[in-house]
Amino acid sequence: MGRITARRPVLRITPEGTRRRPDALAVEEPLEIRLGGRSLTVTMRTPGNDVDLVHGFLLTEGIVEAADDVEVVRYCDGVNADGANTYNVLDVSLAPGVPDPGNRGRREFLTTSACGVCGKASLDEVAVRSRYPLSDNALEVTTTALWSMPPTLRSGQRVFDATGGLHAAGLFTADGALLALREDVGRHNAVDKVLGWALTAGRVPLSDAVLIVSGRASFELAQKAAVAGIPVLGAVSAPSSLAADLARDRGMTLVGFLRGDSMNVYAGEERIKI
Amino acid sequence: MGRITARRPVLRITPEGTRRRPDALAVEEPLEIRLGGRSLTVTMRTPGNDVDLVHGFLLTEGIVEAADDVEVVRYCDGVNADGANTYNVLDVSLAPGVPDPGNRGRREFLTTSACGVCGKASLDEVAVRSRYPLSDNALEVTTTALWSMPPTLRSGQRVFDATGGLHAAGLFTADGALLALREDVGRHNAVDKVLGWALTAGRVPLSDAVLIVSGRASFELAQKAAVAGIPVLGAVSAPSSLAADLARDRGMTLVGFLRGDSMNVYAGEERIKI
Repeated sequence: MGRITARRPVLRITPEGTRRRPDALAVEEPLEIRLGGRSLTVTMRTPGNDVDLVHGFLLTEGIVEAADDVEVVRYCDGVNADGANTYNVLDVSLAPGVPDPGNRGRREFLTTSACGVCGKASLDEVAVRSRYPLSDNALEVTTTALWSMPPTLRSGQRVFDATGGLHAAGLFTADGALLALREDVGRHNAVDKVLGWALTAGRVPLSDAVLIVSGRASFELAQKAAVAGIPVLGAVSAPSSLAADLARDRGMTLVGFLRGDSMNVYAGEERIKI
Repeated sequence: MGRITARRPVLRITPEGTRRRPDALAVEEPLEIRLGGRSLTVTMRTPGNDVDLVHGFLLTEGIVEAADDVEVVRYCDGVNADGANTYNVLDVSLAPGVPDPGNRGRREFLTTSACGVCGKASLDEVAVRSRYPLSDNALEVTTTALWSMPPTLRSGQRVFDATGGLHAAGLFTADGALLALREDVGRHNAVDKVLGWALTAGRVPLSDAVLIVSGRASFELAQKAAVAGIPVLGAVSAPSSLAADLARDRGMTLVGFLRGDSMNVYAGEERIKI
């Protein structure tokens, strides 16, 4: 695609003075995902691995379960003012028999008669149902292997080196081997890209994998990991309360502040071997 | 609200050994925003300043222009399993004469006959129209004042100190005085909270203000600043390509990597006084 970074003029101001130079920025462009020609969602993403992104999005929104559920994904022939394809619209055809999610776009929220998000815990209100229970997943991962993963992720972040502007997500084996790494301006897109890769590679559920994210662990990222059947999620920075709650509820191991030679385990510590 | 941080048990693993302790996490909960009883959007946010958040969201989505456009915002009486109000649903009534945005929820995307996001630049496709042109805004801000803002923002981030898990947005005067600071697990929510504060305080358009964000500057954040009429946006980390493009297009000053005694100016350098 060649559109992962873009040069823009910048005025750099330091104590030594000012200078003009071109600066590499992480590219952010809208991607519209269509289902049978109808707009499903638009996400601001870094171009590249768009087909992976779409597969991961459909998986973690509960629309597909397997790569076979997607019949075809194709770039629409939108063109910009110069006549070049924008590559910013992907149309998905689901395989025969896969239920169309209808007009809900994103998942619907249970709206009760009067005034909703009532009577149930927040978690239930926003969670996508996961098909892969994690509570009986017996994967074990050593602290040594976990500590090796963020440096491996970081060393693979070629675009971050150029721009300082991208999130990364990496799938690892339990002994620390990198399976896939993707970068994006949106952390949820980076995760969808690695999960979409896994789906098309026939690796879902990812019951023997560890997902590492370069930043914080939000509810949304924890949910994506759970829906893909991943037993261990590690984040370089802090988790949110709801991410920790979801991990406990689903039987997932959640590690935060995974840096240097320390870590915080918020859920599922039985999988961590010191 | 008292729900900005929450304690969760954690197993802390370091070279010195392991210990169990409670850890403060940034709270993340869903907020459903309704318009006249109909669900408009759900955002994952840190509770607190929810009414500001709603005002800022409605402003930056182009649904309202002034505080008077909002007749009332009230928490719905949803309760959780224990009978306590969840405070996770806000219902908005627009003032008479303010057009209802209909069912679009988020802004609609121009879908042409065949296969859209065609024939126009990406920017036009996703931009909310701004009512406040910035190109003739003559605000000036010194580098000294700009460099003072991130430390001021950081020192006001009380919740970050406890959790390491929140984004911050701060509104400043051109000489570096802090007007408002908000924190949230979502960077767009932190920005909506300060802009909603400004809207209800009668300060929109913010034609003499500087907006500082603790992280990266995405297209979405730059757009929110533009819609609120803010002439200068500063980010501690990197901007995206589309944020820089939007700033240039709108006549906004965009500063990135605003740290220590250096900065990168991506657009609108005429407002920066060295």
